[in-house]
Order: sequence, then C-alpha cells, then structure tokens
Amino acid sequence: MLINVGIIGATGHTGEMLIELLLKHPNVKITHLYNSGSGGKVSQVISDVFPKFKKRLELVCKKPDLAEIKKDCDLVFLALPHTVSMNFVPKLLSLGKKVIDLSADYRIKNPKIFEKFYKVSHKDKINLKEAIYGLPELNRAKIKTAKLVANPGCYPTCAILALSPLVAVNLVDTDSIVIDAKSGVSGAGKKLEKEYLFSEVQGDFRAYKVNVHQHSPEINQVLSKVSGKKINVVFVPHLLPIERGILCTIYLKVAIGAKLKVKGLVELYKKFYKNEPFVRIKPDGVFPRIKDVAKTSFCDIGVKDFGNVIIVISVIDNLLKGASSQAVQNMNIMYKLPEATGLL
Amino acid sequence: MLINVGIIGATGHTGEMLIELLLKHPNVKITHLYNSGSGGKVSQVISDVFPKFKKRLELVCKKPDLAEIKKDCDLVFLALPHTVSMNFVPKLLSLGKKVIDLSADYRIKNPKIFEKFYKVSHKDKINLKEAIYGLPELNRAKIKTAKLVANPGCYPTCAILALSPLVAVNLVDTDSIVIDAKSGVSGAGKKLEKEYLFSEVQGDFRAYKVNVHQHSPEINQVLSKVSGKKINVVFVPHLLPIERGILCTIYLKVAIGAKLKVKGLVELYKKFYKNEPFVRIKPDGVFPRIKDVAKTSFCDIGVKDFGNVIIVISVIDNLLKGASSQAVQNMNIMYKLPEATGLL
Amino acid sequence: MLINVGIIGATGHTGEMLIELLLKHPNVKITHLYNSGSGGKVSQVISDVFPKFKKRLELVCKKPDLAEIKKDCDLVFLALPHTVSMNFVPKLLSLGKKVIDLSADYRIKNPKIFEKFYKVSHKDKINLKEAIYGLPELNRAKIKTAKLVANPGCYPTCAILALSPLVAVNLVDTDSIVIDAKSGVSGAGKKLEKEYLFSEVQGDFRAYKVNVHQHSPEINQVLSKVSGKKINVVFVPHLLPIERGILCTIYLKVAIGAKLKVKGLVELYKKFYKNEPFVRIKPDGVFPRIKDVAKTSFCDIGVKDFGNVIIVISVIDNLLKGASSQAVQNMNIMYKLPEATGLL
Amino acid sequence: MLINVGIIGATGHTGEMLIELLLKHPNVKITHLYNSGSGGKVSQVISDVFPKFKKRLELVCKKPDLAEIKKDCDLVFLALPHTVSMNFVPKLLSLGKKVIDLSADYRIKNPKIFEKFYKVSHKDKINLKEAIYGLPELNRAKIKTAKLVANPGCYPTCAILALSPLVAVNLVDTDSIVIDAKSGVSGAGKKLEKEYLFSEVQGDFRAYKVNVHQHSPEINQVLSKVSGKKINVVFVPHLLPIERGILCTIYLKVAIGAKLKVKGLVELYKKFYKNEPFVRIKPDGVFPRIKDVAKTSFCDIGVKDFGNVIIVISVIDNLLKGASSQAVQNMNIMYKLPEATGLL
Repeated sequence: MLINVGIIGATGHTGEMLIELLLKHPNVKITHLYNSGSGGKVSQVISDVFPKFKKRLELVCKKPDLAEIKKDCDLVFLALPHTVSMNFVPKLLSLGKKVIDLSADYRIKNPKIFEKFYKVSHKDKINLKEAIYGLPELNRAKIKTAKLVANPGCYPTCAILALSPLVAVNLVDTDSIVIDAKSGVSGAGKKLEKEYLFSEVQGDFRAYKVNVHQHSPEINQVLSKVSGKKINVVFVPHLLPIERGILCTIYLKVAIGAKLKVKGLVELYKKFYKNEPFVRIKPDGVFPRIKDVAKTSFCDIGVKDFGNVIIVISVIDNLLKGASSQAVQNMNIMYKLPEATGLL
Repeated sequence: MLINVGIIGATGHTGEMLIELLLKHPNVKITHLYNSGSGGKVSQVISDVFPKFKKRLELVCKKPDLAEIKKDCDLVFLALPHTVSMNFVPKLLSLGKKVIDLSADYRIKNPKIFEKFYKVSHKDKINLKEAIYGLPELNRAKIKTAKLVANPGCYPTCAILALSPLVAVNLVDTDSIVIDAKSGVSGAGKKLEKEYLFSEVQGDFRAYKVNVHQHSPEINQVLSKVSGKKINVVFVPHLLPIERGILCTIYLKVAIGAKLKVKGLVELYKKFYKNEPFVRIKPDGVFPRIKDVAKTSFCDIGVKDFGNVIIVISVIDNLLKGASSQAVQNMNIMYKLPEATGLL
Repeated sequence: MLINVGIIGATGHTGEMLIELLLKHPNVKITHLYNSGSGGKVSQVISDVFPKFKKRLELVCKKPDLAEIKKDCDLVFLALPHTVSMNFVPKLLSLGKKVIDLSADYRIKNPKIFEKFYKVSHKDKINLKEAIYGLPELNRAKIKTAKLVANPGCYPTCAILALSPLVAVNLVDTDSIVIDAKSGVSGAGKKLEKEYLFSEVQGDFRAYKVNVHQHSPEINQVLSKVSGKKINVVFVPHLLPIERGILCTIYLKVAIGAKLKVKGLVELYKKFYKNEPFVRIKPDGVFPRIKDVAKTSFCDIGVKDFGNVIIVISVIDNLLKGASSQAVQNMNIMYKLPEATGLL
Repeated sequence: MLINVGIIGATGHTGEMLIELLLKHPNVKITHLYNSGSGGKVSQVISDVFPKFKKRLELVCKKPDLAEIKKDCDLVFLALPHTVSMNFVPKLLSLGKKVIDLSADYRIKNPKIFEKFYKVSHKDKINLKEAIYGLPELNRAKIKTAKLVANPGCYPTCAILALSPLVAVNLVDTDSIVIDAKSGVSGAGKKLEKEYLFSEVQGDFRAYKVNVHQHSPEINQVLSKVSGKKINVVFVPHLLPIERGILCTIYLKVAIGAKLKVKGLVELYKKFYKNEPFVRIKPDGVFPRIKDVAKTSFCDIGVKDFGNVIIVISVIDNLLKGASSQAVQNMNIMYKLPEATGLL
C-alpha cells in the first residue's frame, strides 16, 4: 500500500519531525509540502529550510493549494499553530481527504472551554463534534474509521498515559491529582522570544503558566471520561534546559476504601498496556528517564505506592509520542497497517 | 576584626566555594587548608587542585593537623562527606575552636533516624545535642552563641524557607505537603560515577531516591518544630542538566477552616521575611527562576493560592545558600559582623 | 538477502549505535551480541544495559563464543577498544567470517607507528597487511572484496574527506596544513574519568593531546597516499560540550604556481564527490554546522579561498559517519547492497 | 577615594557585568544608570530588568541626561552598541568627564577601515585620534592619563595577549598567523535572532564570519604596532554552546633564522608578563581551559613549539577580561588605584 501524504505547516518543529518519520515509512509518499499560507510566506525548497534534508528531499514548500491536494493527497497532516488549523479542516474534509491535525483545535469538545484557553471562538463546531481524539491506547477502535483525528497535546499524552490505569479502576482520590511536568524547549516550537534564547535557557530552570496552562482542560476532559467522574488536576509545567523530552511526576492519594484487584500497581499497569507497542512499564521501584525515550516513539512509566500516596513518573519525546510519531501511529491505524510501521 | 579560618575538606565543591567566598571576605584570613586525611591523601598546592586560584591563593592543602589548628585557627569549616565530620568535631571543640559543619552529621537530632538514612550509627551524640541548626532565618539568636553549627542541607534550605511562613501560622493541611525538587548536578558533589558523566546528564532529566531521600527527615524535623505539629512531607528530588541551582515546586492544601490574617499570601511572606538580607519574595503571580539566584546567596520565593491549593516555588544556589554562603552567613552571625559581609 | 550479523563489544557507544542502525536495516538480522570477554564480564540482556531497546531487542550480551559465531554469523562487527580487536580478528577470519573492525588496530599500516601511538606492539601483522581502509569515498573498489575492513577513525574521516579533493590535485602546499578539530564528548567513549563528568565538561572548552593525537598518523598516511607526497599535518583536537558531532576547521596555503582546473573550489569539490550518497558540498561562502549532520550519516563540507589561504570546514556525526554508519555503509558495499540501505 | 560612576547602556550584557563588578568595588559609587536613549526606551528600575539585583541596587535606568551626568559623575562607562557610542563621547569629554567606551567606536585608528567593517562613517575623528587603546598589559602608561579609553574587543584581548610576547621579539613568520577562535554565546550580546535560540545553539557548533570578522583589523592594528611590521592574521571565529568564555588556538611558524634569547617559550612568556596581575602562563606542555577563567578577570595562556610550528592557546571570560573587568581595570589605572581593586 502507498499513502500519498501532504503536510501543511511543514517548516515548524512538528512538520520537520513528520518529514523525518515519513521519509523512512515504507508505505508513504510525501507528495506536497505547504507552509501556513499566512503572512505572505514565499516558496522555499524544504532542504533550504532544513539543510539536513539535502540529498534526501528536495520538494518545494509553498502556499497550500487545495486543487493540488485534491488531486495528489490521500491524507493531510496539519502541523499548524493553534487556531489556524480550523481554517483548513472543513475544506479538506469536504474534498474527502483524511486529516490528522497536530494542533489543539479539535481536542477540546466544549467550545467555551476552548475559547477560554485559546482566546478565540471556535469556527468549526460541526467537525469539532466528529473529531476523534487520537490517543491510540484509549481510542484505537474509533481512530480506525476516523476522518478527522485530533492528535493529542504533548503534556496530555504523557499525563494521561500515566494516569489512565489508576483512574479507570477508581483507585484514586480524584481530587488529589498533582501533575508536576517538565518539558524541553522544543515544546515551545520555534518562537523567537527572549525567553527561549540560549543565554536565557542554558543553566536555568523555571515554572511557567503555573496551574493555568491550556493543556489542563485537555487532561481533565480525557481523564474524566476514563474515570466516569469529574477530574480537575493541578498542573504545573516547567521549562527544562534540554531540547527534547517531557517528564511528568504525578502525585495522588489512594481513594478511601479503594482496593487493588491485582497483585500490585506495576502489575496493574502492565496488564492495562499489555498489547501496546509504545508503552513500557518499569519494574517495581524503578522510574524512567528522558534519555531512554528521546528520539523514540515510546512512553515509559514507573509507578510506586508509598502508603496512601502513589507516585507515577512518565516520560515521552514531546515531538514524537507527544506529536509527530503519534500522528504517524494514528495514520497507521487508519490505514490498517501494523501500528509500529516506520516508527521503530 | 580578623577571623583566622581553617577548612577541612578543601578540595570538594563546597570547600572550593568556601575558599572563593572567604578570599573576598574583608574580615577573614584563611590560615590552613586540609583534605579529609583519609585514603593516604597527599599534600597539594590548592591552585594545582583548582587552577582558577593561581595568583590568588597558594596554600598547601594537607592532612589535618590539630596542633596547627590549635595555634592558628579561630574557626574551622568542615566541608567533608557525611559520617566523616563527626570524627573531627569533638577534637576541634575540645580545643576551644568554633566549628561550622557543612555535612549532615549534626543536623538530625534523633540518632536512630540519622542511622536509618545515613547507614552508620552516630559517634558523637553528646555534641549532637548541643549543635545548632544553622538556618539564620529561623535560628539567628541561637547561632550567635553557638560553638557548633550544623549547616543545613541544600534541599532543606530551599524547602523550609518556602514553607515556614505557612506552617508557622497553621494555614496548611500538614498531611498534604508535596515537594517536587529539582537540583543541578553539583549537588552530587564530585562523585566519579557513570550517572554523572556529561553523556548521561546532558539532554536528560530524571527523578532519583523517590520519596526516600535523606533530606526528608531533616525537612520534617524542622517544619514540625516550626509548626508545632508532626509533619511528613512527600519529597521527590530530580537531577537537572545544569551545574548549579535548586528549584522546589511545592503543593499543599489549605487546612480546613484556616484563615489568613493578612491581606494575602505574598504579604504574609513579605512580613515573615521582612528583615532578611537573603530572602526575596516575588510579586503576586510571579514565580522565581534559578538564573536569578545562581552564583548568589539569595533565596527567591513565589507563592499563590488556587482555591484550596497553594503552590509555592523557591530557588537557591545549592552550593551557596544551600551550603557555603550560608556557612559564611552563620560565621558572620557568630562574630557579630553585618550578616551580608563578603556575600553581596 | 539476509545478512546474519554478530557484534563483539556491544555495550559501548559504537556498539549501541550499530544496534540502533542494524535494527532498522531491512537486510540484517542481529544474531548475537557479545561483550569484550575481558575482566570477568557477565551476561546481560541488552535492554538492561540500554533500556531504550526494551520491546525492540531482548538478546543476551555475553562472552564471545567462536563456535556460535561460526554457526550463526556471516559478518562480525568489532566495536572494541583499541588493542583488543587484534585478539579476535585472526580467529574470525580463519572461520571464514567477514570482519569490520571499528577500532584503530588495522588502520595504521606501519606497525612501528602503530606502536608509537598506541603503546603496544601489533600482534597480527599478517592481517594488518591485508586490511582495507574502509573509507568508501576513496576505497570503494577494494572494500567490495574485502575480508577485513579497518573502519576509519572519526577525526580522520572528517579531515580526509575535507582535504582529499585538494591534495589529490596538488593544489596545496603540503607543508602548510593545519587541522583545528572539535569533537563532542561521545568521541571519548564511556570512560569513567573525572574530565568527562558533567560538571567538568558543561560550560567548558579545551584542547587536548595538542599535536600528539593518535589520529595524526592515520590522517597523514591516507592523505600522503592521495597526494603522492609525504604529508604531515598539524592537528589539534578540542573537546566540545555537546554529545555528538565533529567540526574540523582546516587552513592551508595554495601551492606556489598551483592552478585550479575547474571554475572554483566549490565546483572542484562537487565534482570530486558527485556520486557520493553521504557527502554534501555547501554553496560558495556557506560553511556547515554540526546540527545538520548530528544523528545522520552525512559529511557536509564548505570551502573558500582567501587569496593564497584556503579554509575548509567539514562536519560529521562522530558516532555515525565517524564510526557506526560508516561501518554499515562498508557492509552494504561488501554485500553489493545499495550503499545507503538502512542509513537514510 | 570615591569615584562617582555613570553607565550608559546599562541593560545589555556588558552593562550588567559592570554593575555586578562595581557593586563590589570599594572605591566606586554608581550614581546613575542610563539606557541608550534610542527607540523611545522607557525608564525601568534596574532590578526589574535584572531581578538578580533585587535588594542590591534599585536605581532607575532612564534616558541619558547630560546635566545630571555633569553634576553627579566623574567617569562614564559606555556599554553601548557599536556606532552609538560616538554620539555620546564628544559631549561627555566636553563636560570634562573621563570616558571608558566598551564599544568598538574608538578602537580602529583608520576611519576608512572602521567604515569598511562597521558599515558607517566615523562621526568623531578628532577624539578618535586621542583615544587610548585600553589593553593594560601593552598600554598601561598611556591609560594612566587618558581621558578616553577605547576598551578592547573580546577576541582581540584574547589573541593579542597570546601573540604579543612572540611578535615583540620577531620570532614569528608574520605571514603565517592563524587564529582559530571559539566564543560562548554571550559574545553576541542579547540579540533576538533565530540563530541564538536555545534550540539552535544547544548541541551545535559552527564557524561564522569566516575570515571577515570586524575584530580582524583590530588585531592586525595592535600586533603590527607591537611587531613593527605589517601583520595580517587569518581569523576564524566559532560559536560555542556555552554562555561565557573565549578560547583562541593560534598557529604560527617560526621566522627563518629566528633565535630565542631565553631558555624557552614558557620562560619568554613568563618574563613578558611577570608583573601582570591578570595574566597567568601555564607550565610547559599544559594548555588552558575556559572553566579556569570563566567569571574571572584572568587570561590564561599555554604555549609550545613543535619544531618550526608554535601553538599558543589563550582563554578569557569574554564579558570580563574581554569587556567589563578590563574596563574596571582601566578605571583603576586611571585613578591610580591598585590595579586589581574589586576584581579578585
């Protein structure tokens, strides 16, 4: 099988990663690369934007062209800034194309919450309803037949995978969840802001958007669904002086009277994820580190209880399992390919 | 006034920092430098150990010599590994010398807890009773007349300064405190272990000693005293890919029925620390970063409440306020010098 | 075609990279992993050594076993320390196996020079004579039929590719070549030495083995052959505070009366490397950077003349084109596979 | 003695360093801080610009005010971008103030060369003639009575100190000098450009302005004067992924027939710099590293001959000996203070 793929937003971090992955994918042909089309952006050979693609890919990255997409693409990845994707999705769906959107535009089901956190009202509420949240470990069946996949955020991927086995069995005081998250700088994309200069980041560490980050409602929405109860996490992200990777340290209390039905938490997790190609559970007492998942599609998780407190630590590569490799994993599912194709 | 000072353990990180600070101190003369005396260590010119001291200090660092100390030192800093200091303290005190011990040996008042966490039984229980915990912000009066100061640990300094204003007024559910701490690599001293190699640390981030770190009982002991209630914190340290600095993100719940007597938390903190030369409170909604305190003697703190959850973030330089500058601050207090002498 | 491959020395940096590459190679099966067999090394599951291989490769890495190799391997990669490989090579060749040696043992043709720089006399002079220097860009024809390939050193690969187009046409004053080389820390392997600790490397930069590095004779040997004249370069390596990558800045003088037969130096280089899959020449006035080749198999080169001085800058990933991907490239040539198989 | 000091350009890297140093200087009072006055810059408390100065300095940084300077300053430091300083110098000198200019505006004596490299014609040729090049090791006598000191560039300081002992005695083929220089990112000031983002610099290394950097003519001008012969160096700067520090690796050939009048090169260097407080010569065969001079005012130099090739390696902190501490050293000389006052 050969899937003809287009990427809109190919010059950002997640676009770059998508190209990197798709060049190695045996069932994909990248037919077109597009920029966001805004701000008078001009055409550029992609290997001039990213010299590391010289001798590997010489496609021109240009303004999005729907006629061309109609003709040459089966599926389109949107690697666009938030609030930009929703301008493209209705048109692409109306052309009958499958769409995987890496932005936040179709993740939050409640348009009011979306507006509160993204400061713009949603322009495509119809497709918002139909969009499938693309976390394969929770949603595989629906992804198979999806037309529009909302690819999860990086922090939510890392936090939800860490928490789902616990909240699914009501083992947790749902009011007690604290997520202390740390991310490498690539999570901020390629913003040209003083705070992302080398001389600011190197040797530093700091929290940001303390308990007001836009990924909170995404985490709450998904965990509430898994749990069947309303969950509101405390969520504090921090900026690590590294390029890639997220680590979440999660603290929670055991629900009063809760009873574990398996031998231990590690067993619970291993069982929950037993057929997952990209989730790895650490042995009891061992916790994961970022280096083991950086530049990979894996999520590694360690969990341990300390009396009535449980600590879970999870790690992913924010640009891969937190963005582009998860998008490719979703594509593999949509096309009934082995799920790890091109990702190992 | 001129204080004649000796340093035992001058070749480690904290010894190096002590030399750096004392060379700039207008009231100090470094009379002797000593190594730990163990393992057949040989004499070395200190500027051969640390070439950055060339043309600044050419003292020989040699085996500890009590006769020499008796003659030439008023005060001795012990910058030794844990469980080594307690071999020197009784002898130095019996010579009538003042001692500031930067190791953990005299911090934990309960010898059983010391033994549990440091894996060795305490050899000097008599002086252990008399040792003063050298956190000036809580203990200034006692430090003034102390013979033996137990200089606080780095994590405890950062966490206790962040939490004291809250636990002092019983505003907090003492069962709810979670300390998510992150430290630069210099916190591990100069251990030649694989996990501290550049190729292991660079680009990585990981937790270690998850909720079993030896600084937990030190934090619990001091906070319990401040609070008047037994406090048991959850404490997870992490290793940052930077050289210097600690940031603690602290989560706690407001005690049921608790009532703030001042306008807000920031006011509470400003009042609590209003005469402190080295504690700075951030404006409401602003949190501190490591860069602002690295290579300084300051502790910066930001605090904010989110309904019934309070988040406090504090930062210090682990080698300075978390070790050597705090030791010098204690010396200044012991000798009735202005507390910031040589530290600004 | 399926090549059954064994790796001796699988737990070092280059072994790790070989595994990484071979897992993605469509024509390779890794049949066995071995350690160096020295120092009482015990068997370990490779994914315990490198947790990032969990769910990808669960082979046991054990003491080398010649009977097993005889049965199960077509080709053996030696990723061993220098002076260790030559203990294995004669045995492997006598079993009829192809060998690609990533150590320095078979690179230097003159055993006296080898002894001078590696401090041990050569134990296998017979095979030393037959070994083919595995730089495909210069030696492709001989590699095709080689039994034993001496995979080039990292600095030599970077320097020789940068200089060959010039010395091949006698454009250069061969007495004038200065190579100022800078390498990431992984070039030092995984040595547990103080100088490779994070706290020593981070924020630092220094030269080492100034003009006495063991890669000098390797560079001189190959360039002298390309040139037809005796070449002695000045070579100063430096340690960069990064994990991976080498950049060589090379200075040389135009030979008196030398005449360029093509339009310019960039053209000369493009022509010289026109069919090479892994060498990329920068446009005139543009010089390469490490980021564009890190984690790739490419060598990027920029060149410019400034009157009678020529400056050439070249970059590679020291663990890939400087070691493991070059080894795989050599394997592809030996087995008549497309040269870039598994490497793009 | 108390010197009343103003700083124009206090919000840049070198301004920040000047404040840091002057706060610790026993003979200095900072009376006023000014921004560059351009672009509608508004007044700001300096500790809002640099939170690390909280509780240490609360001066307002505002538009330059000549009347105020006339009244309150003895000496003014200009920490301004190149081509901006020359707008202020004539006015300040006419007020009778002493001026130390950290920009490049008064370093190059030939206005045509200045224009060629700084792309603007010089507006103050009169004072340009009178300006004293502030490298104490070469120019101490003239600095003592200077009204206007042109503080040297960072690369020139590092390269000139490394080369002066050799070119002063005509030991060198003046046509052979190659300076391969590497600098931390702070050398670029605080420019908000993509190339200085953390995600671009971290893990990277690259050359820039290859043999066309504006510091070349400064190096050539000074060395030609020291030598008495016209010198044209080859100079290639590189960007290191660290914040602070410069290392120059310098290659040169011994002049034909040259004869060393002392025992060796190390002796020659030690003699040349024997009374210098901030130059340290390494023992024979030892070369310096950036870590030993970072955050200090020192220049460390190592030198060794290899037959007819000499290699010199020198290191400084680009913001200190390469800028702000050198400026303070010049001030100390101008005011007949011990030269190291406030700098050790």
